[in-house]
Amino acid sequence: MRRCVKCKGESVINLKSTNAAFCQEHFIEYFLRQVARAIKKYKMLAEGQQVLVAVSGGKDSMALWDALLSLGYRADGLHVDLGIGEYSEGSRLICERFAANRGARLYVLSLMDTYGSNMQEIVRRTRRVSCSVCGTVKRYLMNLVVQQKGYRVVATGHNLDDETAALLGNLFGWQEGYLARQYPHLPSTHARLPARVKPLVRLGEMETELYCRLKGIEFLADDCPLARGATSLAYKELINSLEEKMPGTKQRFLFGFWDRGRRSFIDTPVELKGCSLCGQPTTADTCLFCRLMQKAGIDPLTQPQVQEM
Amino acid sequence: MRRCVKCKGESVINLKSTNAAFCQEHFIEYFLRQVARAIKKYKMLAEGQQVLVAVSGGKDSMALWDALLSLGYRADGLHVDLGIGEYSEGSRLICERFAANRGARLYVLSLMDTYGSNMQEIVRRTRRVSCSVCGTVKRYLMNLVVQQKGYRVVATGHNLDDETAALLGNLFGWQEGYLARQYPHLPSTHARLPARVKPLVRLGEMETELYCRLKGIEFLADDCPLARGATSLAYKELINSLEEKMPGTKQRFLFGFWDRGRRSFIDTPVELKGCSLCGQPTTADTCLFCRLMQKAGIDPLTQPQVQEM
Repeated sequence: MRRCVKCKGESVINLKSTNAAFCQEHFIEYFLRQVARAIKKYKMLAEGQQVLVAVSGGKDSMALWDALLSLGYRADGLHVDLGIGEYSEGSRLICERFAANRGARLYVLSLMDTYGSNMQEIVRRTRRVSCSVCGTVKRYLMNLVVQQKGYRVVATGHNLDDETAALLGNLFGWQEGYLARQYPHLPSTHARLPARVKPLVRLGEMETELYCRLKGIEFLADDCPLARGATSLAYKELINSLEEKMPGTKQRFLFGFWDRGRRSFIDTPVELKGCSLCGQPTTADTCLFCRLMQKAGIDPLTQPQVQEM
Repeated sequence: MRRCVKCKGESVINLKSTNAAFCQEHFIEYFLRQVARAIKKYKMLAEGQQVLVAVSGGKDSMALWDALLSLGYRADGLHVDLGIGEYSEGSRLICERFAANRGARLYVLSLMDTYGSNMQEIVRRTRRVSCSVCGTVKRYLMNLVVQQKGYRVVATGHNLDDETAALLGNLFGWQEGYLARQYPHLPSTHARLPARVKPLVRLGEMETELYCRLKGIEFLADDCPLARGATSLAYKELINSLEEKMPGTKQRFLFGFWDRGRRSFIDTPVELKGCSLCGQPTTADTCLFCRLMQKAGIDPLTQPQVQEM
């Protein structure tokens, strides 16, 4: 094993993409520097700004929450309890323990408490792809909490691997709209919608996991039981095999897209109007959340039960 | 094995991407239809037009030559004999035998006869990547033959796999200029330069090989000994593994790029001037061919020895 490039101490990781090895202390320093660099480069947050972090209990969102607090941001957590048995119980406990240990604010929104149904049931009744239903529901509920509690920015734990796989998927399908909107900082497009930022885009999932382990941050290692055989996994495998042969490929590909490729795709601004049922901003007459909930036999106007701790 | 979708006869191939199986006769018909479709869609050739086919002796260029003749085009071959030992001897013989059997015209241009050096030597003396040197030299010599013999269009055997791998490579590096110019029909940009067309872009290498075998077309199966570990091979592997999981991926990716993605990349037209040495169109003061040949200690103005048969 190579020695740490900073202090020549024993290394815990050897990053092929940047050809650098780090000891525990200097890896943590490196990790935080990468987060700070992404925040600065894409103008995600002002110094010490308040931000709502979407936390699932997995390694990425937990590492993100910790990193934002460590960098001095007022980072509060929002956890949506999907009610998927032990998986969700474990996820929620991890978020609650982290908040208690770090004295951070955490909002928990439980699907069962609010709607009397869990995510499996909602997915089953809508007869749609689970990741897509779950994403729509979580994004909608997050926006409600943002409005209730007065946040301006939401941060999510999407990492280098997630973004590279998404980019490849969008390119394979030539999804021009998605390509134009794939950026680590999406400004608010409506007074009721927050800006969305992804501060982990410079770091891979191996690195977020190591960061958690080294800092003693608890996380749930299990994959979501509803997300089987997602095509994004095929893209990740593929990119990893390229990265193996040509280290640095992911970063060159993704950052090259953001620096140069993306400007080629023009984002046609869409007009947002109020949903005919709930009044939230949408491009359709009735927003996707309301339509999904109606299909699932749930009143979309049910007031979400948010616990604050 | 499934039965032929046309005649229910015994099938020789099952194409997952289009979910169709074909017998020998109907596969050949399908193959020619795909070539005709590409020619029509990208307006490559007028009916019965004269075209110069760059033939290496490999499966792609031999299948292309045969297909163009079968579709009624006046397709003449041009083979550049690189002088790489048995590999080149075999390649040349295959082209010569095909021309003799089909009564087609073939031009052979031998590097040894013209310059007294073979491709290995030229590559070694220029200290450049072999595929890049070889490509430059062949393209230049092809243009000379085109001018001498009065052709307007050159066809090459690039297939679906080649083009998909090239597209992925150009995207991974965000080569905007290359992206703008990756198209199966590049019109002439100068009175001395031919249009360039790629009629095999709808067909994969498995299909070109099968076409040759079924029609009894001889080809050299060996890879060029100078082209080891080309990165395009890594991209091909990667795309093949995706295609395996999601049949039709290659076609959706490539045709989607041509139909929609490519328009996003603007090709900045470059001004062509005459090379200070040879007078051929170039963007530089002295063209790359002349510079390479000078570096290899060869007079770039040497008159090429073209044999016609």
